[in-house]
Amino acid sequence: MTIMREPIFPKAPDTRGLERGTVLAPRFDAAGLIAAVTTHAETGEVLMLAWMNDEALRRTLETGRTWFWSRSRQEYWCKGETSGDRQWVRAAYYDCDGDTLLVVVEQEGAGACHTGAHSCFFRAFGAGGAGTTPGSASAAANGGGAGGRATS
Amino acid sequence: MTIMREPIFPKAPDTRGLERGTVLAPRFDAAGLIAAVTTHAETGEVLMLAWMNDEALRRTLETGRTWFWSRSRQEYWCKGETSGDRQWVRAAYYDCDGDTLLVVVEQEGAGACHTGAHSCFFRAFGAGGAGTTPGSASAAANGGGAGGRATS
Repeated sequence: MTIMREPIFPKAPDTRGLERGTVLAPRFDAAGLIAAVTTHAETGEVLMLAWMNDEALRRTLETGRTWFWSRSRQEYWCKGETSGDRQWVRAAYYDCDGDTLLVVVEQEGAGACHTGAHSCFFRAFGAGGAGTTPGSASAAANGGGAGGRATS
Repeated sequence: MTIMREPIFPKAPDTRGLERGTVLAPRFDAAGLIAAVTTHAETGEVLMLAWMNDEALRRTLETGRTWFWSRSRQEYWCKGETSGDRQWVRAAYYDCDGDTLLVVVEQEGAGACHTGAHSCFFRAFGAGGAGTTPGSASAAANGGGAGGRATS
């Protein structure tokens, strides 16, 4: 038996509502998930991308910490609950078509990545020239390359 | 008839290869897609999230502009080809488990968002306190909130 429950978040009535509405109407995908990018409140660095379902998003809003849905483990996880690398929500945004969230966090501990790196994006690729070689496992992850934030 | 072709990118041999390997081994999802976050090379601002398949990623690397796969239109698109809001790749990163890309770009024109906003993340939600109310449609999108990059 499937247990139906009330949706936690509203649906946008139409494209205009989706693009211009000022009430969060997240568009979860077929698996009930929405991508959530987290960035560091102080540096602006992109830390990680993980997935929320409606309940994870509700918990995030309620607790002020980031909650996600693990696709591999099929369970909720609160970032840092085990590692101590907690994330405290300082601001949050939704995108023009409502299918991605951006969560600005204060990052506790060593960083956001389970490998111990500050950001999950610690490896560069492509031939963008100097700066695409990863330097440290932290700030270099995002500012690198010509015109990188830290140097321009 | 399904036409098989050689994969464009290698697969990581195992978890260690995935997390520590220094050659890009993107993990495309069941639909053959990988999430690509773009950020502004000068400000660090998160501009948008879109999806690449292997060929879009190949084109991005080859041309130095961002190519995506449109899930709604089921076609390739080169960012800015119609609008003029082109993105020039300055650096690119892959994350710890190889299923998200971060592309640092120079953004031409008005911005990255099809609505005319500089960033797609121009609307705040939640009760993070002062600063979660969207200010302008550009820089406020990412720095907002206590400890936002621009103010800390």
